[in-house]
Amino acid sequence: MDLFLQAAIEQARLGLAEGGIPIGSVIVHKNRIIGRGHNRRVQKGSAILHGEMDAFEDAGRQPASVYRESVLYTTLSPCAMCSGAILLYGIPRIVIGENQTFMGEEALLRSRGVQVEVLQDSHCLELMRAFIAAKPELWNEDIGV
Amino acid sequence: MDLFLQAAIEQARLGLAEGGIPIGSVIVHKNRIIGRGHNRRVQKGSAILHGEMDAFEDAGRQPASVYRESVLYTTLSPCAMCSGAILLYGIPRIVIGENQTFMGEEALLRSRGVQVEVLQDSHCLELMRAFIAAKPELWNEDIGV
Repeated sequence: MDLFLQAAIEQARLGLAEGGIPIGSVIVHKNRIIGRGHNRRVQKGSAILHGEMDAFEDAGRQPASVYRESVLYTTLSPCAMCSGAILLYGIPRIVIGENQTFMGEEALLRSRGVQVEVLQDSHCLELMRAFIAAKPELWNEDIGV
Repeated sequence: MDLFLQAAIEQARLGLAEGGIPIGSVIVHKNRIIGRGHNRRVQKGSAILHGEMDAFEDAGRQPASVYRESVLYTTLSPCAMCSGAILLYGIPRIVIGENQTFMGEEALLRSRGVQVEVLQDSHCLELMRAFIAAKPELWNEDIGV
């Protein structure tokens, strides 16, 4: 498996072990991970720390030139908020674990020139399938439903 | 002046007094402020705490029904990230202090059914004019330039 997707899945599993929603993300610059994150809605009572946002926060304040050479990996198709962060910082390419559980703003991202790759990875799918079966209300809250 | 815009401007001024970027926001539910925020890039070394995101975080975990009856006030036209959060949570209406300093994703928001009102408020304009004249590099960083 892609080593960076694997690092995103490790983040998702870490979140699950903490009692959280199992979605993880890493930001990669020049083949090195500069930010790791996972959804912290439960852990921090946060409405904004989706996995991707948490990875941006972990990467910290970066110059525009770094974002524009980075790839964002996420276990699940990014929602409007996370897609907006990807657009704000001009991330040119994202790799998505799966989009069967949730279809994010992939069309918007592509229309703005972001290269979007979807792997339909079985580990990512199974993490979300099991989680939603166990805690559907938490999942709905996370996507504003 | 609109009392809620005034509360958003107070947040912007608070951010300025802390050495930060003077953009503020409040989220209003049934005529009551449930979240207040201001940009904390400098104060917290944060890449994601724009004023609107900070207001969402201050409001905390809310049921979908609350977001869908809320109005978001912001001193400056919301960037892609903050607009994405507005879309994620289904905020139906936003009031913007000004969009002359920066034109955010107003067209996208309108295309998704969000009611967008722009006031071109002189206090909001002057806060950003003076700030950008003093610290242009910080402003560019905040909008990913």
